[in-house]
Amino acid sequence: MMGHVVKALLFDVQGTATDFHSTVCDEAQRISAGRYPSVDWPDVVRRWRASYFATLDAKQSRHHGWVSVQSVYRDALDSVLDECGAAGFSDAEREELTLAWQRLKPWPDAVPGLTRLKRAFTLATLSNADVAAVVNISKRAGLPWDAIFAAEMAGVFKPDPAIYRMAATYLGLDPAEIMMVASHKYDISAAARLGFQTAFVARPLEFGVGGEADVAYSDEFDINASDFLDLAEQLGC
Amino acid sequence: MMGHVVKALLFDVQGTATDFHSTVCDEAQRISAGRYPSVDWPDVVRRWRASYFATLDAKQSRHHGWVSVQSVYRDALDSVLDECGAAGFSDAEREELTLAWQRLKPWPDAVPGLTRLKRAFTLATLSNADVAAVVNISKRAGLPWDAIFAAEMAGVFKPDPAIYRMAATYLGLDPAEIMMVASHKYDISAAARLGFQTAFVARPLEFGVGGEADVAYSDEFDINASDFLDLAEQLGC
Repeated sequence: MMGHVVKALLFDVQGTATDFHSTVCDEAQRISAGRYPSVDWPDVVRRWRASYFATLDAKQSRHHGWVSVQSVYRDALDSVLDECGAAGFSDAEREELTLAWQRLKPWPDAVPGLTRLKRAFTLATLSNADVAAVVNISKRAGLPWDAIFAAEMAGVFKPDPAIYRMAATYLGLDPAEIMMVASHKYDISAAARLGFQTAFVARPLEFGVGGEADVAYSDEFDINASDFLDLAEQLGC
Repeated sequence: MMGHVVKALLFDVQGTATDFHSTVCDEAQRISAGRYPSVDWPDVVRRWRASYFATLDAKQSRHHGWVSVQSVYRDALDSVLDECGAAGFSDAEREELTLAWQRLKPWPDAVPGLTRLKRAFTLATLSNADVAAVVNISKRAGLPWDAIFAAEMAGVFKPDPAIYRMAATYLGLDPAEIMMVASHKYDISAAARLGFQTAFVARPLEFGVGGEADVAYSDEFDINASDFLDLAEQLGC
């Protein structure tokens, strides 16, 4: 278990604190208004998210100038709609659908869990989403962060070590005093290699029903939790 | 008056949202515990703050590597205590006194005013203090920001244009959609030159009683307000 006193928690946002799958599916169904009855919207969202990850990986290896994540999602959408039989979406509809990523709904435990955790810890995001997206999502959802940190501030995406180090510098804390919280093992494992403590939060519906999210607990993490309320409980809040 | 719809407000922290003068005076009196009856503590704090500004100006012109504002305050303290007849402070006491800048108390109108403004606007700091200091001050005081932006994130101090541009980029807004709020005219004037809207907030006690704060309203600003509640009122919140 934990060897140091944790003073701050860093949270992944897309998937860990918020349910992007149902938010984006709901928005796609609202905007398409029944015009594409044969389209599998959960599959659209899964492909869209996979395409986003592929683009981020390519950006990291090529050291390009900074691109907004909003533009990454927008650029990836066209081929996904083509592949899935929804090529009839207008430009305005594509813009509107992409904005869904700035309106992600929190998981039901997120606000009550964070509210409990905030009494004992400094809470900040550490997200690959754009700063503006994290601000908009958090304000709309009422996520009570003490600070918002995002890849855009570091100029690199997670899991690049520089972004975790940036967060520790900005918090004025040692990595051992900070716990990285995510439903994605690559994210917390990268933080662990730099000396951060780790909490894995299982999000079985991250990719929707049957979406095969990895929810297996592991001893390699300091905490394994079923949601943010369980995390608060295990941290004594 | 305002030509564009304001969507976000940026706030200076040291002096505008918080009362550093009384906070640091109180801490100095608590730590000195009556050992220096002849020391003029308000004068100590005014000299300390002036020395901080002089150091920041020097940093800006020399393009040095980044230094924490906490270390600027700590370095400036020794000669101020010498000059003012309090050279007997121990190293531990000097460290403790410097920490007062991370515990600044909000002006009485700050929390209720920001709470009203938060319903209609995105609220963020734009401070020359270290990120960790702004986080600590805000958490302790309950200042309900949506985001914390600070000079440390831009690598330059206000009034360098790059820090105001950084905030606009992070908010995903045009400068004309953002209002810079401060009790310091050099700060809001620098923002105005980049197209930001401006609110001047008078803080007559910023440097204590008789401290000669500049509280003159001016037509050059979009809003002149007596405090954050008056600002909320004038912005229709």
